[in-house]
Amino acid sequence: MGYSITRKILKEHFMGGSLKAGESLDLRIDQTLTQDATGTMAYLQFEALGLDKVRNELAVSYVDHNTIQVGFENADDHNYLKSVAAKKGVVFSRPGNGICHQVHLERFGVPGKTLLGSDSHTPTGGGIGMLAIGAGGLDVALAMAGVPFTIIAPKVIEIRLHGKLRPFVSAKDVILKVLERFTTKGNVNTIFEYTGEGVKTLSVPERATICNMGAECGVTTSLFPSDEVTYSFLKAQHREECFRELSCDSDAEFDGLFEIDLSTLEPLTACPHSPGNIKKVAELAGKKIDQVLIGSCTNSSYQDLVKVGQILDGNHVAENVSLGIAPGSREVLEMISSDGTLSKMVKAGARILESACGFCIGNHFSPCTDGVSLRTNNRNFEGRSGTKSGQVYLVSPETAAISAITGVFTSPLEQNIVSSVENVNAENFYTDDSMLIFPPTDSSDVTIVRGPNIGQPPHNVPLNDKISGKVAIKVGDKITTDHIMPAGARLKYRSNIPLYSTFVFEGVDKDFSARCAARRDSNIANLIVAGYSYGQGSSREHAALCPMYLGVKAVLALSIERIHQANLCNAGIIPLTLMSEDDYNKINSDDDIVIENAIEQIKSSDLVSVTNKTQGYTFTCKLDVTQTQRDMLLKGGRLNQIKESLK
Amino acid sequence: MGYSITRKILKEHFMGGSLKAGESLDLRIDQTLTQDATGTMAYLQFEALGLDKVRNELAVSYVDHNTIQVGFENADDHNYLKSVAAKKGVVFSRPGNGICHQVHLERFGVPGKTLLGSDSHTPTGGGIGMLAIGAGGLDVALAMAGVPFTIIAPKVIEIRLHGKLRPFVSAKDVILKVLERFTTKGNVNTIFEYTGEGVKTLSVPERATICNMGAECGVTTSLFPSDEVTYSFLKAQHREECFRELSCDSDAEFDGLFEIDLSTLEPLTACPHSPGNIKKVAELAGKKIDQVLIGSCTNSSYQDLVKVGQILDGNHVAENVSLGIAPGSREVLEMISSDGTLSKMVKAGARILESACGFCIGNHFSPCTDGVSLRTNNRNFEGRSGTKSGQVYLVSPETAAISAITGVFTSPLEQNIVSSVENVNAENFYTDDSMLIFPPTDSSDVTIVRGPNIGQPPHNVPLNDKISGKVAIKVGDKITTDHIMPAGARLKYRSNIPLYSTFVFEGVDKDFSARCAARRDSNIANLIVAGYSYGQGSSREHAALCPMYLGVKAVLALSIERIHQANLCNAGIIPLTLMSEDDYNKINSDDDIVIENAIEQIKSSDLVSVTNKTQGYTFTCKLDVTQTQRDMLLKGGRLNQIKESLK
Repeated sequence: MGYSITRKILKEHFMGGSLKAGESLDLRIDQTLTQDATGTMAYLQFEALGLDKVRNELAVSYVDHNTIQVGFENADDHNYLKSVAAKKGVVFSRPGNGICHQVHLERFGVPGKTLLGSDSHTPTGGGIGMLAIGAGGLDVALAMAGVPFTIIAPKVIEIRLHGKLRPFVSAKDVILKVLERFTTKGNVNTIFEYTGEGVKTLSVPERATICNMGAECGVTTSLFPSDEVTYSFLKAQHREECFRELSCDSDAEFDGLFEIDLSTLEPLTACPHSPGNIKKVAELAGKKIDQVLIGSCTNSSYQDLVKVGQILDGNHVAENVSLGIAPGSREVLEMISSDGTLSKMVKAGARILESACGFCIGNHFSPCTDGVSLRTNNRNFEGRSGTKSGQVYLVSPETAAISAITGVFTSPLEQNIVSSVENVNAENFYTDDSMLIFPPTDSSDVTIVRGPNIGQPPHNVPLNDKISGKVAIKVGDKITTDHIMPAGARLKYRSNIPLYSTFVFEGVDKDFSARCAARRDSNIANLIVAGYSYGQGSSREHAALCPMYLGVKAVLALSIERIHQANLCNAGIIPLTLMSEDDYNKINSDDDIVIENAIEQIKSSDLVSVTNKTQGYTFTCKLDVTQTQRDMLLKGGRLNQIKESLK
Repeated sequence: MGYSITRKILKEHFMGGSLKAGESLDLRIDQTLTQDATGTMAYLQFEALGLDKVRNELAVSYVDHNTIQVGFENADDHNYLKSVAAKKGVVFSRPGNGICHQVHLERFGVPGKTLLGSDSHTPTGGGIGMLAIGAGGLDVALAMAGVPFTIIAPKVIEIRLHGKLRPFVSAKDVILKVLERFTTKGNVNTIFEYTGEGVKTLSVPERATICNMGAECGVTTSLFPSDEVTYSFLKAQHREECFRELSCDSDAEFDGLFEIDLSTLEPLTACPHSPGNIKKVAELAGKKIDQVLIGSCTNSSYQDLVKVGQILDGNHVAENVSLGIAPGSREVLEMISSDGTLSKMVKAGARILESACGFCIGNHFSPCTDGVSLRTNNRNFEGRSGTKSGQVYLVSPETAAISAITGVFTSPLEQNIVSSVENVNAENFYTDDSMLIFPPTDSSDVTIVRGPNIGQPPHNVPLNDKISGKVAIKVGDKITTDHIMPAGARLKYRSNIPLYSTFVFEGVDKDFSARCAARRDSNIANLIVAGYSYGQGSSREHAALCPMYLGVKAVLALSIERIHQANLCNAGIIPLTLMSEDDYNKINSDDDIVIENAIEQIKSSDLVSVTNKTQGYTFTCKLDVTQTQRDMLLKGGRLNQIKESLK
């Protein structure tokens, strides 16, 4: 029986565990990437490991999320990232150089390598045949330390492509079709592998668009073969020496199959408020729009923007529409500037934005109240645009550009403004690494720059045998990580755990943080009691790191969401499951709680005995964690565990 | 005795009062401009006048300040501005079209006309021979209604230019020289008129730079002749029909003279934290810098950016510097894109920012902590950059560009990187008015769009004959308009007086607003008691409009600053001066205060009798206002006064 490409790469990077779907698998990570929003904490954690230099093949630090820079914090973060990169052997991509995934694909992507990135759209690299996975900052810090990355060995679904896309239909429509089929749920621990003769009709940037937005299905990653198209792309980037052919064996076995005839696809859109809420653009034809935004890591390649320029050429943005265009990288900006595309855009009334994430993460170009926004990016969650009532539709660059002209939803297949559009694949990219700073071999005289917002990395201590504390807060069901750790205007404090910690539960109980900190300083443990689904929503690790900083030692909840539970263990906070609603109802805020023989209980028992001293009763909680996680909890978190193992 | 150009234009626009320096003078206003930060309130006030259409020759509404658009408020403001412009006969310049002063100069400036703009840098228009003055939103609203604008008839200072600037020395250095001589204080009610044979060596954009930053001296405006250079600029803009020659008579008399030999000037810089804190760039040579920003209404013309491109060509931004460049208008962006300048900038590592105010108003590109920032804009007040500890130096584009390459302060005259720089005056501008929306002749079917943040225009009622109320707050000395009306994150509520009013005195007494609103609703007047220098700082009219909305009827202070006192009268709040510190000390918060026979007292008396009912005594305050202001106070503010006169 033959192998899929996925299996070949997994085998090559196998470091332990099992390749059998559903079992734990340890992988060697070749390359890592970080961006500024997650990067500062990742490097603070890497620093805490005490290593001189990164140990993986290539580590790149990008700045693309917060380039607006309101207040000193973001510029300080950039300086920290630049200096820690030089010190630790990391390549630094300066602000303005472009979006991490676009730049990484252009300048660093290598077929057959593994890439771990602290950004959920890292799978973009699958377009060039990399096994590219998104993860939390600490996981990436550990990968930079050479620690294998553990995943659940995936099922591999074959997505077989037939035929060829028609003009005006594009890669974005392919992935929207995949999202229509697979939705945004139920695809965890799965990899999508693209096969079939349709693959060779797609350029690397098109493949990257498809892999990028596979993340919305919840898969581990997506993967394309590495073939003559890949070779041409690498050659155009003057990196043909990185080429390696990768194809799946003819008798490879997959865990599922989905076939798409590219020639029958038509322009699609993901409607508010989910990337899986798919309709045909034609169904919405004539609906009035307020803004159009082209760019983001999904659709900001040279090829995308040239098509946009062709459509805008000689036309003009409708009076009711604001059109913003953010090229994906400095290389793309230079190329569209040189070839006249930029001129066409400006003349058509487009607003040219910096090569960065900008609008996609809601820190630029929020729509008006109830505003209908057509965007080429990958997520349209409610409120993500910065406007709670905003109606964001995800579309291809072709649909975006033609609709910007008409002012209403317009299928590029059903209009008579632009008669043709040509797929231009650059044969020779403008390449320029002058905004990359490569680390010096000897970094002994590099000083890491820490502005006042760059805090100490969070630090925990090994578990006490007796945990004696108070219920610091009792909350209800469905508390999200947004409740625990507010984002928005507070996010700029992300590099400063002591400061960011003052906002824990800010909107729920504004005294929580001060109360916890006072107890922590008196050696009294803080405990959180919660209902069902505690910690749902965003995966942000700060929702565990900041409570840990405040001296939270355990969470007692009727249920805890999977990712947050992992984050709690990573931080050394014990995730205990209450065994009945009675237990939840009985316990009160401010009750004195004691866990005796904690070390022995955590080390080996699935059940943990807890005493409520205030009310004078003892009850039992469940502890549903892996052996490795038990070890973390004893040692005060994953960082301590790893530091010990690195000694 | 001959006339200065200033006097000629003033005479042509004379509508009343006197031309004698120091006396009140009413002027006819031909053109008006607004920008989005001040414009929404200006148009709400214009709407409150009840006129169908604007009555001046030309009114243009620009959007250039808040184009970052975080949250729905800014996009909603843009929609309001667009629709009210169509309804009321105002030309609307769409977001992305550029900075108001740059665009106005290019597309609308006419020698010899008067321009009133709700932006303090409106004097930029002096570069094309307009008498262009900055004012508050209400003043501009009234000018749109055809109401004459009242100024104190100015002294006219002649600034006589000799010789010609050397390469690498530029218009910015001329105005920095003027600032060195005149400083930022003591020049009120003055106009700078430029004369001498050096004038003809300066292009219109260079003259505009000089006039723009004259605002920092505190003058009413600055003015250049209209000559063959002006004609060439208008011709290049395809508007030669607007040309009119303007020169001062050979025997014109001025109130003062300052001579500058352009050929001896060298690169200058305004050091932190004042535009008047001038040093030679050479004196700072070698000092490390962190960021460089080129653009703003002072230095973002095609001519400026071409020189920047010449300097950057083949060079690269230093590793320690972030360089941002914001072209002044879409026309400039298109021209530097077509002629290869943009390419040079991108290749050199510049970050290209949207054509807007951005960094200059601190909502983009804040420097790092203690960051040294070289900027081509006009103000470097402490904290204005968004970073309190930021060190902002104002320089020419040439100094900015060369220093970005070296990474340290570098006088462009004392470097060996770039051997020459050429002054390119476009003979044929790319002109394109497609991002301007001209109002329809019949606007009956235009609906004004008001998002939820577009509030009601503020409204006051005629004075009651008995003012009966309570001291709502008692504050100390030197209370600024920032104390009264917080800016920063609250500024986005500027279009919504009811909402913005909930933040009055937010940092001083957070219950103030709610307390006042409750009393207002019970028909109890609110009074503010303050020490010396009440209302100093920014001229923002919201510091009067919002208290007025909350039912504040009088301010009793030991002294009130001039501009704020005028704003209080405009809003219909009585500005009373306490006659002794004893009177200030005696009165308490929450005291019941009554002013009997208010109408008679306000109408005709310089002294107003006030009774403190709580403590049982009567005292006398001073009322130092003009007859027109007495009338405003009786009618409940200037808007009511004007509405009545328009009937």
